[in-house]
Amino acid sequence: MDAAEFRKRGKEMVDYIADYLEKIEKRQVFPDVEPGYLRPLIPDCAPQDPESFEDVFKDIEKIIMPGVTHWHSPYFFAYFPAASSFPALLADMLCGGIGCVGFSWAASPACTELETVMLDWLGKMINLPEEFLAGKDGQGGGVIQGSASEATLISLLAARTKTIRRVQLEKPELTEADIMGRLVAYASDQAHSSVERAALIGGVKMKNVSSDDTFSVCGSALKKVLDEDKASGLIPFFFCATLGTTPCCSFDKLLELGPICNKENIWMHIDAAYAGSAFICPEFRHLLNGVEFADSFNFNPHKWLLVNFDCSAMWVKKRSDLTGAFKLEPLYLQHHHQESGLVTDYRHWQIPLGRRFRSLKLWFVLRMYGVTGLQDHIRKHVRLSHQFEHLVLQDERFEICAEVVLGLVCFRLKGSNELNKALLKSINEAKKIHLVPCHLRETFVLRFAICSRTVESTHIKFAWQHISQLATALLKTWEQNHHQQLQQ
Amino acid sequence: MDAAEFRKRGKEMVDYIADYLEKIEKRQVFPDVEPGYLRPLIPDCAPQDPESFEDVFKDIEKIIMPGVTHWHSPYFFAYFPAASSFPALLADMLCGGIGCVGFSWAASPACTELETVMLDWLGKMINLPEEFLAGKDGQGGGVIQGSASEATLISLLAARTKTIRRVQLEKPELTEADIMGRLVAYASDQAHSSVERAALIGGVKMKNVSSDDTFSVCGSALKKVLDEDKASGLIPFFFCATLGTTPCCSFDKLLELGPICNKENIWMHIDAAYAGSAFICPEFRHLLNGVEFADSFNFNPHKWLLVNFDCSAMWVKKRSDLTGAFKLEPLYLQHHHQESGLVTDYRHWQIPLGRRFRSLKLWFVLRMYGVTGLQDHIRKHVRLSHQFEHLVLQDERFEICAEVVLGLVCFRLKGSNELNKALLKSINEAKKIHLVPCHLRETFVLRFAICSRTVESTHIKFAWQHISQLATALLKTWEQNHHQQLQQ
Ligand SMILES: Cc1ncc(COP(=O)(O)O)c(C=O)c1O
Ligand SMILES: Cc1ncc(COP(=O)(O)O)c(C=O)c1O
Repeated sequence: MDAAEFRKRGKEMVDYIADYLEKIEKRQVFPDVEPGYLRPLIPDCAPQDPESFEDVFKDIEKIIMPGVTHWHSPYFFAYFPAASSFPALLADMLCGGIGCVGFSWAASPACTELETVMLDWLGKMINLPEEFLAGKDGQGGGVIQGSASEATLISLLAARTKTIRRVQLEKPELTEADIMGRLVAYASDQAHSSVERAALIGGVKMKNVSSDDTFSVCGSALKKVLDEDKASGLIPFFFCATLGTTPCCSFDKLLELGPICNKENIWMHIDAAYAGSAFICPEFRHLLNGVEFADSFNFNPHKWLLVNFDCSAMWVKKRSDLTGAFKLEPLYLQHHHQESGLVTDYRHWQIPLGRRFRSLKLWFVLRMYGVTGLQDHIRKHVRLSHQFEHLVLQDERFEICAEVVLGLVCFRLKGSNELNKALLKSINEAKKIHLVPCHLRETFVLRFAICSRTVESTHIKFAWQHISQLATALLKTWEQNHHQQLQQ
Repeated sequence: MDAAEFRKRGKEMVDYIADYLEKIEKRQVFPDVEPGYLRPLIPDCAPQDPESFEDVFKDIEKIIMPGVTHWHSPYFFAYFPAASSFPALLADMLCGGIGCVGFSWAASPACTELETVMLDWLGKMINLPEEFLAGKDGQGGGVIQGSASEATLISLLAARTKTIRRVQLEKPELTEADIMGRLVAYASDQAHSSVERAALIGGVKMKNVSSDDTFSVCGSALKKVLDEDKASGLIPFFFCATLGTTPCCSFDKLLELGPICNKENIWMHIDAAYAGSAFICPEFRHLLNGVEFADSFNFNPHKWLLVNFDCSAMWVKKRSDLTGAFKLEPLYLQHHHQESGLVTDYRHWQIPLGRRFRSLKLWFVLRMYGVTGLQDHIRKHVRLSHQFEHLVLQDERFEICAEVVLGLVCFRLKGSNELNKALLKSINEAKKIHLVPCHLRETFVLRFAICSRTVESTHIKFAWQHISQLATALLKTWEQNHHQQLQQ
């Protein structure tokens, strides 16, 4: 395929994508396929000779689409949103076209510099303390990671190195292995599994801190476990606070937790993967109060800020904490400018070496929506979740299971976990909408997350009517069964 | 921006990218900007109100392009190639349009299933032993990682868990921290820095094994250090063999190393980040002999197989080794089919949770080039590197520093490191072509890597003439200086 054919096919692809997104509502949100569906549909091995674009193109509808879960359907209410917008798609095309690999400043200066400045823009939008910004010569700054999981891992690793160095100075009798064996990381029992995974990868212990009845971790809970662990010779070194937990979007109490971490020399990382985008609205910014105590902070524009995956924004107060944990400099990656202070080599900030020009997506989205356009998007989603909440509350058979703060509603039928599992099953088998569940303590709960950029009030009403009808049908057979069981 | 505007702007972007790539040769390969160039060119913060696409678009040439290193210019001979092709760009557009996040089978079955089958296709193309393929019910299989660094890290972590479990059974008196403190990973002194980094992240020791005069690690070198380390109570657990080292594209001797690793219960990972693509040509496949002894194998189609970044292909013999190292299952990520055996949840195979639909790129590229088209691409690059090698060899002032096997030529002026540093400086300051250096032992060497998809024999000739002229000019002043120094 040459440039001339690319012009033609690229335009066809643009139309295909526009059609797909414009009419996505008409597609069944969750596919019908069974595991293993795809293999029999395609050849056993790659063709020897080139096939035409037409051949490949027609297989998209035949082979791919039947197996796609349509994350951007307005009937998709599962997980958390995956961001998507036209400006981001355009930027990603450009990113592919330029195709640079920006692991160092010299490998493509624009790629590094736009990223630093975009993270400053974004930091200012959520009113991050100055210390987290790169500015002209700050010690802090931002970086785009591929995922929140990587941001948590990177901060845990930086904290590990920093703590080992400090303890080695204080207690020279301890070997590195001794210290590693005593390090403990902490996070809420509501924290995302990526925190436990980061600790597993880093080879350190990890303990859950009990959340309170609003599913938030408060200062006293952290203090209790720290005191116990220190008394038994362990070394607490890392706490991951969550703003907007995955199960129910609860918020850890930063203003209580932060001072404890600072006093105890514990690195505080904040994972606001989903909720962070909301902090661009002044009315939600108070949820971030206490960030001034943190060492690192992360949220995912690729979840809720209309920037397509992958774009996870992370800031640190001291960039040297990250680079100090990893810096390795083979000659072929060194370059003329690197000691100039002005230069950032982002490969020292991340797990992979290579990196795409992802800041283009942020640049396009921030400019073409403007702050107000993005605030409108967040506010619409929050409004719709409250609409759903009210519909649930009007139906006595149901209950709301956690405070609705942003775009997630946790709800259930008053009744057993079994009943609610049956309800979720009937919802997902009907495939008119798509949801996933969670556990809040021992309770099985349905999560209704406002996801699609194009979801409107009518879709919420439809979803609720549908759920309510399925509940009616379910309760009928359920009571009959129950009745029969009583009679037997 | 609505779908209608996206149709218009998307097509403009397609044309822009086609223009960029068609005329890339006319752009100076390396930019003129100094560190910090970009910040003064754009506002201090994001705009409140939306800007038009035109405004953003015109800034691409004004603000971005002046700071771009043009990786796809036929005058770019630095690092290793970054793959780019039109079919891959089209597939990536589609990937963005669908915008699913395929962390589990249910999150988008097509995303998972196409990946498994594409990695089987690719595995067959390089004639990987059957055990590495997923097939219908194999124990092995492939996965797309974001980078070779991640593949190395993942395999090191899997090896670490496996070894800790084994040693705990054999020596119950050792704690996990004791075992961690004794684990040692190994790689060639020529290995990529990502191996050392993986060990750093995993919290284990790492030692270099000395390579021989062809910069390859042979069995006896590994055996020597293993014997020493075992004698001093350490636990060797991981060896990363490199096929195609970054400095000079040398090859570790798998057929000697593999049996040693197998005997000693050491996980052998093969990093063929760059060279792996060449194994699709039967005449280069012998370089992979011995892969049958490995536990995991990785190469980057995003380097040399025309699949745009990021697409790093990794295979394991036992998928349970990977998933066993990480598996954590919160309820909101569980789904109906997951215990069916047929189902792969790729999040257990990787560091991040989220993942894009990257296998589309492989599917498009493999079909639209066909195996023969891709072989042609590899063979052309290898031919061009030999062309350059011959040009160097015809000039007595120069020498070749390592055997030219694939698309990389290591060369230098006969003379001091200082002289060669001065030559590289004059090449890169002229900015007609772009190269990076490396060290081979104590020797400073220039690396000439065939990179661009569109590079032709004429570009090689031009590059050589240019280098040769700069060398003539340099040697003149150098000798004058030398002469003056002698006289002083
Ligand atoms: C609170 C929280 N943290 C982390 C993650 C993981 O995000 P990623 O896929 O970017 O690693 C999620 C995903 O839903 C999340 O909700
Ligand atoms: C041998 C080798 N391994 C690993 C890498 C790192 O690759 P990635 O950027 O995919 O992590 C490179 C990059 O040049 C390499 O040459």
